[in-house]
Amino acid sequence: MLSWLVEHLQRMNMTNVLVRPEGFTREGYTPEETSAMEVFKDIAKELGLAVKVDAAGNMIARWEVPGGENAAVATGSHLDTVPNGGAFDGGAGVVCGLGAVKLLKEADYQPKRPIEVICFRSEESSRFGVSTIGSKAMSGLLDLSIGTLVDQHGTTLAEAVKSQGFNWEELTKAKRSKEELKSFVELHIEQGMHINDHEKNYGIVKGVACPIRLAVTFSGKAGHTGTTPMDRRQDALAAAAPFISFVQDTALQLNDVYEKPLVATVSTLTSSPNSMNVIPQTVTAGVDIRSVDDGLKKKMAEAIGIEANRIEQATGVAISIEVLVDNPSVLLDEKVARQLVDAGDQEAYLAHHMDSGAGHDVMNMAQVWPSGLLFIPCKDGLSHHPDEYATAEDLKMGSELLARYLMEATTL
Amino acid sequence: MLSWLVEHLQRMNMTNVLVRPEGFTREGYTPEETSAMEVFKDIAKELGLAVKVDAAGNMIARWEVPGGENAAVATGSHLDTVPNGGAFDGGAGVVCGLGAVKLLKEADYQPKRPIEVICFRSEESSRFGVSTIGSKAMSGLLDLSIGTLVDQHGTTLAEAVKSQGFNWEELTKAKRSKEELKSFVELHIEQGMHINDHEKNYGIVKGVACPIRLAVTFSGKAGHTGTTPMDRRQDALAAAAPFISFVQDTALQLNDVYEKPLVATVSTLTSSPNSMNVIPQTVTAGVDIRSVDDGLKKKMAEAIGIEANRIEQATGVAISIEVLVDNPSVLLDEKVARQLVDAGDQEAYLAHHMDSGAGHDVMNMAQVWPSGLLFIPCKDGLSHHPDEYATAEDLKMGSELLARYLMEATTL
Repeated sequence: MLSWLVEHLQRMNMTNVLVRPEGFTREGYTPEETSAMEVFKDIAKELGLAVKVDAAGNMIARWEVPGGENAAVATGSHLDTVPNGGAFDGGAGVVCGLGAVKLLKEADYQPKRPIEVICFRSEESSRFGVSTIGSKAMSGLLDLSIGTLVDQHGTTLAEAVKSQGFNWEELTKAKRSKEELKSFVELHIEQGMHINDHEKNYGIVKGVACPIRLAVTFSGKAGHTGTTPMDRRQDALAAAAPFISFVQDTALQLNDVYEKPLVATVSTLTSSPNSMNVIPQTVTAGVDIRSVDDGLKKKMAEAIGIEANRIEQATGVAISIEVLVDNPSVLLDEKVARQLVDAGDQEAYLAHHMDSGAGHDVMNMAQVWPSGLLFIPCKDGLSHHPDEYATAEDLKMGSELLARYLMEATTL
Repeated sequence: MLSWLVEHLQRMNMTNVLVRPEGFTREGYTPEETSAMEVFKDIAKELGLAVKVDAAGNMIARWEVPGGENAAVATGSHLDTVPNGGAFDGGAGVVCGLGAVKLLKEADYQPKRPIEVICFRSEESSRFGVSTIGSKAMSGLLDLSIGTLVDQHGTTLAEAVKSQGFNWEELTKAKRSKEELKSFVELHIEQGMHINDHEKNYGIVKGVACPIRLAVTFSGKAGHTGTTPMDRRQDALAAAAPFISFVQDTALQLNDVYEKPLVATVSTLTSSPNSMNVIPQTVTAGVDIRSVDDGLKKKMAEAIGIEANRIEQATGVAISIEVLVDNPSVLLDEKVARQLVDAGDQEAYLAHHMDSGAGHDVMNMAQVWPSGLLFIPCKDGLSHHPDEYATAEDLKMGSELLARYLMEATTL
């Protein structure tokens, strides 16, 4: 089983290594993502599953049960990555879901209701600034107005979707009714160190921290760097600098004061015209704020607004803040969580109860179906990085946990 | 003459306005620059000048004097712009040079030695980070190793040169011997407010401040923005922020303490991977430092090095500094300056003696030939900005000053 999981995760990563210096770049709605999903389809068929592609490009690999209950028990994750990301963020959940089916088939298990392994499209927000597009569509949460969002090359989301053979206007047809699924469980690498710090084997997630995301625009005045005196400038980048420091310093301070952790990051920054001899005229910065404590998240966003006003007054650079995303945290289903703990107990794996700082496809699925999120450890907590890594043993544990859960949930 | 100057500057800007919201984008060695230079050639020919294109793509419009002295008296500037720049930076000097020839021809003046109006290639550093490529080639100062520099689209300088019909390896053939020219004078917009502040009509430049330019690289560690605790990060952008503030604040302070002005700008910044959910891993920043006081410039660069060390220690983000350019300031020819003042006296224009914070083609020409630099005022001191503007009256003054100078310098 160890080598099966490694080899099949390699297959879906289109390579024979799982860590490499340049990492993996397989963004949402690109040919690279589509190729990886075609491999998912092949593996699912090899396991005897029927594979359906929905209107959003999600793939649903289904273990059909003629004459049984209709509502399926589902698991799944995604295969897209951030640029130069790792092979495990998303891929671990997909391969463990397939591995669980393999374990159940090998044990000649006969489910009383269908089992699904779902591979979602475009989970990462790196390309268009919006995450979990496939699972949003499946959960009926997709707002078609975001089709005009552009990536850094000027390609719109709608165009990207079309390039992979789907029609943006029809993406909402991927929505599934509540009756189609009984429950959904996602397995994911932890992307942190809590499991390890608490000397446990895996994580059971209670709440998923959804981000507040801000687009902050600094509008200064261009001018010649050699001839514009220092005291006559409105340098947009010089105004953005104390703003970036404020976000970093304030987030650090709030963690000392409040119980729940908070993270805040100026993760994107573009300066224009970005010429060696021109004073920066416009800077746009993206701020990503997360905590399962929604009040703390709002406190941080408010402090950022006040600081932006202060800098505007002090520098003469106009600052505007647009809220891109502001979603409350998602609480997962307690019954599903208990079933996942039971699954661990049967295999003598120790569960750590925790929150998730990262968003996942499950946060959309949980709006419609009873859902759970299972973490396996990853090396040094690293993710979205070429050194991202999870051991074969932990992938095997993940498959076993999912297999136990799927069995429990499909015995009626 | 007023309308001739305006109309012909419009022609070279391929438009019928001289200020427009988006400004002018005509970078070095692009089809846009080439098109503008073709118009320069047409106008020069209409004035009866012979036009030669050298190996670097510079155009030399020459008033030949059969049987006269060989060494020509030259004036000129450039037609490339920064992205979204103005119509006057470069263009003013070119049109005033042509206008001066027109004035001399209309006065039936017979020079005793050739007169040249030179249109240089690729003066701005915005595309490749290196300025005045055409005049470097003509002055024999071009280092062919810079052909591998890339613009933001990954095009090398050598490729850009080739795209406009020239061969990078042959650019050094544009070098002219000392004997070919007697002197060179450039007219340029001031790009500052000193002429106006001193209630004079035009500027005569003594020294040209050449920049120290640094490429500063901050190497942190990527990670998931949602799951990496604040106190376990090496965020490259969070480390760059206090660096940017330091450059701005220190430059402001040094101007309070020292006599000669100094400017220092973090003018470019690129953050990677620049994804909403990934901690910035690598930031590269370009720093442009200028003063005619070379010692002050070095003091600033040293302070930047010390601050980079401090930030590196404090944040764990590795910082490396590469010196891209470090040229001493250029002193212009005193005799040429006196002749330019004489030219103003004859027209009752008042000269302001000053330094130039910006580099110009003349700083290369001055390494080989006695050279001068003449400034005409520009509105609000604005340049490298769509609102860049000089009045038709000041363009006319510029043509008259150049005509007087060319006459004086070609009577033998």
